[in-house]
Amino acid sequence: MKKEINVLDYATEIMNGVKNGVLLTTKANGKVNTMTISWGTLGIEWARPLFTTFVRDSRYTKEFLDANGEFTVNIPYGDFDKQILGFCGTKSGRDVDKIKELALTLEDPEIISVPGIKELPLTLECRVVYKQRQDLSALAVDSLEEYYPDDAVTGVKDVHTAYYGEIVKAYIIE
Amino acid sequence: MKKEINVLDYATEIMNGVKNGVLLTTKANGKVNTMTISWGTLGIEWARPLFTTFVRDSRYTKEFLDANGEFTVNIPYGDFDKQILGFCGTKSGRDVDKIKELALTLEDPEIISVPGIKELPLTLECRVVYKQRQDLSALAVDSLEEYYPDDAVTGVKDVHTAYYGEIVKAYIIE
Repeated sequence: MKKEINVLDYATEIMNGVKNGVLLTTKANGKVNTMTISWGTLGIEWARPLFTTFVRDSRYTKEFLDANGEFTVNIPYGDFDKQILGFCGTKSGRDVDKIKELALTLEDPEIISVPGIKELPLTLECRVVYKQRQDLSALAVDSLEEYYPDDAVTGVKDVHTAYYGEIVKAYIIE
Repeated sequence: MKKEINVLDYATEIMNGVKNGVLLTTKANGKVNTMTISWGTLGIEWARPLFTTFVRDSRYTKEFLDANGEFTVNIPYGDFDKQILGFCGTKSGRDVDKIKELALTLEDPEIISVPGIKELPLTLECRVVYKQRQDLSALAVDSLEEYYPDDAVTGVKDVHTAYYGEIVKAYIIE
């Protein structure tokens, strides 16, 4: 069962969720992968509700998103096993099938091709309508080196791309 | 009096405010200007709370933001005169001093150089940490022409720049 929600009415739950960690799930070539994120924005542009996620060049998730521009965001709502966020934030889907390893329950999506994850039941189905790689030369935060050190081997910085996902459906899995 | 708030705990009020219209205020060369916006995002990147606003090339506000990368966002909280949003969304600061015309009450800021507006008391003080002009060739929304028609004279499209403002202070003016 899914209880449909007005996403802006849950903005506080969603943003406090992001602060503490939520799951970003993608699917391509028959594989599902999920990762923990704690950066992201909720809002409106082009008169539509958006969740924007920032994904580094090196991430397995980036390959998935560039192959299939759809994603789900799953946010805790009520009790859940916090080890999920720890595991999915430290392991790469290149090395381990995180869904299988944690025995996560995939929930069939309503509109897009990517499933949600029942254990974190507040679900946003998102379709990428815009993406843009960020330009570090325009970034004026201190501790820039902390976020973007030079890679020890290549000397290249692991930059984020902003994926603006239109939220085409939002619900709580019950 | 200002009651300081945790901005994520007010995300629902802020995002429903944006949907219906909020004020974006800027200051440069001794002048204060404000405009109504109904697009914007709230979230986290680089581990800091952000409000991102999207401003078209043609806007008077863009000149202000590029001269002084600070802005306030003022969101209704309780009753207010809805004509403020109508007026500030249709008049340009190039033609009229909107603050004076509406007799808006400027509130001294705590950290940045741009005042808030007491009539819409939920206030975010923001400092631009990143900006990036959007690339329409990467935008996959229908009705693109509706948002970005060719200018009748120049043939140029009036593109948005995303200004990512770190929220350095948030409060309700009482």
